Parts: sequence; C-alpha cells; structure tokens
Amino acid sequence: MIPIMPKRTVFFISDWTGITAETLGMSLLAHFDGVEFRQVRLPFIDSQDKARDALASIANAQVEDGARPILVLTLVNPDIRQLFESSGGLCLDLFGTFIQPLSTELGTSPTQTVGMSHRAIGSEYLNRIDAINYTLSHDDGLTPSSLEKSDVVLVGVSRSGKTPTCLYLAIQFGVRAANCPLIPEDLDRMALPGELASYRGKLFGLTIDPERLHRIRGERRPDSHYASLENCRHEVRQAENLMRREGIPWLDSTTRSVEEISTMILQQLKLKGR
Amino acid sequence: MIPIMPKRTVFFISDWTGITAETLGMSLLAHFDGVEFRQVRLPFIDSQDKARDALASIANAQVEDGARPILVLTLVNPDIRQLFESSGGLCLDLFGTFIQPLSTELGTSPTQTVGMSHRAIGSEYLNRIDAINYTLSHDDGLTPSSLEKSDVVLVGVSRSGKTPTCLYLAIQFGVRAANCPLIPEDLDRMALPGELASYRGKLFGLTIDPERLHRIRGERRPDSHYASLENCRHEVRQAENLMRREGIPWLDSTTRSVEEISTMILQQLKLKGR
Repeated sequence: MIPIMPKRTVFFISDWTGITAETLGMSLLAHFDGVEFRQVRLPFIDSQDKARDALASIANAQVEDGARPILVLTLVNPDIRQLFESSGGLCLDLFGTFIQPLSTELGTSPTQTVGMSHRAIGSEYLNRIDAINYTLSHDDGLTPSSLEKSDVVLVGVSRSGKTPTCLYLAIQFGVRAANCPLIPEDLDRMALPGELASYRGKLFGLTIDPERLHRIRGERRPDSHYASLENCRHEVRQAENLMRREGIPWLDSTTRSVEEISTMILQQLKLKGR
Repeated sequence: MIPIMPKRTVFFISDWTGITAETLGMSLLAHFDGVEFRQVRLPFIDSQDKARDALASIANAQVEDGARPILVLTLVNPDIRQLFESSGGLCLDLFGTFIQPLSTELGTSPTQTVGMSHRAIGSEYLNRIDAINYTLSHDDGLTPSSLEKSDVVLVGVSRSGKTPTCLYLAIQFGVRAANCPLIPEDLDRMALPGELASYRGKLFGLTIDPERLHRIRGERRPDSHYASLENCRHEVRQAENLMRREGIPWLDSTTRSVEEISTMILQQLKLKGR
C-alpha cells in the first residue's frame, strides 16, 4: 500500500495583498516534510463581512482535511485578527506577535492604517518603476551609450541567466541593471566588448553549467551549432577564462534562484538597492 | 528648535537572502511613525564566524544610536539564533517563534537545512523563468499569434502601467502575462484590436488618471501631441468607454503598486498563480 500523506490547508490571510504572509509562511512550511500543504491566499480581508466569508472557507477546509487549518495572518486591525484567533485554526499572527514588543521598545503606539504597512506609491516605488524601465531598455546590450546610469552591468554567454536576474534586481531592489552578452566574437578575441571598458567597477559575470546551457539553448534552437554541447562547453570555458583574466567577479547561476544570485551580486558589489 | 527624530538601526539577518526578513520587517516598522530607521540587510549568515562579524556591527550600531538595535531574524540553525538572542538587541525571531507551534501541530520535527526554507530550483522556479521569458516576448502586443499560451492579457493606453505589472505577475506569481496597447486607431474605431477577440476571458484593463499620464508621457516626449493633457484626457476617456462597452474588467493604476494591481487581477480573473 502506498502511504497517503496527511493534508493540511494553509490560509494566507491579509488586509492587503497577502504576499508577505505567503512568502514567510512558505518559508516556515518548507521546514516540514511528509505533509501535503494546500495553499489558499485570501487578500484584501479588510472588513468583518469579508472575514466571515473567509471563516466559512476555513470551516470547510477543516471538514475536508479532517484536521484544523493553519492560518498565517498579516492583519492590521486587532478586531479582525480576533475573529481568526477564535476560528479554531492554528494562527501564526505575524503582526500581532511582533507589534507589541516593538511598541514597548520604541515607546510609541502603532498606527492602524491598512496598507500603510506595505509599499506606498512614494519615491522609492517610483524609483523601482524607473529601474524596471531602465532594465528593459538595456536588456541584451542594446544601448551601451547610456550604461553610465546603470548600477550594475551583467555579462555572460547567451542564456546564462542575465535577463531574469536583471529584472529581479530592478523589481525587488530598484537597481538599474543592464546586461551585455559575451558573444563568440568577444570570446575569440578574448576581449570584452569595447563599450564595457569604462564600466569595469560595475561589471558582474554569470556562468552556467555547459550541460544545462545545452538543454536551455536546445529548447529554442534544437540541432543548432549554437545549442550543441561542444559549443556550449567551448563558450563557457572561454567566457570563464575571459572573466578571470579581466578580474570580473562572477558566479555560477546553474543551481541558484534569481533571489540568491541577486543578493550575492549586491553583496559583492556593495550595492544597497533602493 | 527642530525636533530630532530618534534613530534605530534595524538588522535583517538571514542564513539565506534575507529578502523575507526584510519584507516582513519593513511591514512591521511601517506601523511606527516618529522613528528614523536605518536598515541593514545581512544575508548568508550561515556560520558562527559570520555571526560574530554581524554581532560586531550590531554592537557598533548600539553605540552610534544610543539605543539597542532591532534584529529581524530568519535563521534555521538554533545555535546561530542563540548568538543573536544574547546580543542585547531586540530580536524578532521569525523562524524560532513559529517553527515550534507548527511542529507541535503537525506532530513532526522540523528539518534544518539552510536554504531549504526558500525557493529551490524546482519545477515551480523553472515555471517562473518561463513566465518571465514569455512576458518579455509578449510585451506591447508584439506577437499576438501566441497569445493562446497566456494566462492574462493586459490592455490599456500607452504608459498606463501594463509592462511593470506583467513583469511582476511573471516574477512573483509565475503567471504568463502578455500586454497589448489600446492605440488611437482602436479608440477611434471604438473596437478592440482584432487579435484579442478570441481571448476575451483573459483580458484585463488598466486605466490611469489623465494628469498623471500627461506627466509620465511628458518625461519621454515633452511638448508632443501624444503627451498633451488634452490628448491624454481623450485617450483615457475613450479607453474606459471601450472597456466598459466590451465588458472587460479594469482598474485604475494611478495610486496602486504593482503588488496591489497584480493581486487584484489574480483575484478578479480567479487565477491562482504558480
């Protein structure tokens, strides 16, 4: 008999987007193997009426799972928090737990405006939008003339992970991230594209396992020289030699997420973001 | 005399990227006015040696601020957590606080692998990268022929916020988000671009305050008809009429963040993401 994993429904409940509750909640759940978690995000729960609809879903899940649900809460209003505390679910109350010790420490009362606790449309937000637009218009080295406004310029062979990393740097950290491919001509000359010479301190390299690169390139252009394992091995080896010779810091993107790669780049280049 | 705001240094300390600690920590701090917070993210604190370097920074901040720092922790290893608990700072221990009640509830011991608690390079991650690539190649309605693979297609006048929203949907939620502008020809005809007709159920509109649109467009093309307040008013009014007539759900992006807009779109179209 195949053992059946016990199921638990996890509700991420917020008066705002619920993205913070979901992100921390998923980090917590990842510590537990052997349980199948069904995830439900309930955003914009900012009234007693909406809370009551949510409570009905929670009661249903309890019946279906045969076990009480887990509730991860980011709710500013203590009355609405209280409704969920009384629901019978296991409450992980992210605001309620930490607001009180912070209030005591700072000697000041917390404000209670919903959404206040999240990013507003202030100068930091507009800076992120600017960074996204900058990054989109400097993808794949299209306009090197304005690289001077960049915070970082990623280099690496085609399909080594530069574009998703640049977009994450822009969206999450408000960093203006350009990227420029190292193309076969650069690798044959063993020299960086000329326009990068003035931006040495902003350069960061990405490399990738040649077998993985071969698979990624093969999805787009199967049976091409570009995607062949032999060519991928050659390009990666040459690119790594070039970055080593030029003293460009670099890392391997193969087994790393964009979150991890972006954080390592900010740390190595001592960029703060935002 | 101008009153001086008290300063507090806040450390976001993690054995991984620290992005979760920073996101929740910032939400908590936003509840408190009247204090100037200096933020320091310390990622990849995964050894006693790195923890001791961090402790030195914490001690320095305490001296500089004349008040103890606030530490927001996402650390899997209890021994390293303990070092920070003893530092004298106010610890908001995001893993330590909630792992124990979860363990009791689930009747299973937590794993202790660093990074486990974060997104790994699994199928979900590869789906996000696919969504980013899809979204980039379907920005501004360039290749309508493959809209059938989209999860959502955003429509709206030029510069109404479609592109940053699409990228956020892809990066955060793994949603394949295409976008297609409503151009003056569409607005004059009062009809959607023909290629959108088959995707009615995936369409979602963005609108924007004409004054804000005028300012945004003016930054790129000052003194143009395109950016003039009169034309912005006309385009926005026509686009809203068109969306209303065609029964396309839409919202105003003017005072909303990409996080909020994306969450509202997923909710209205009943998309789950990932």
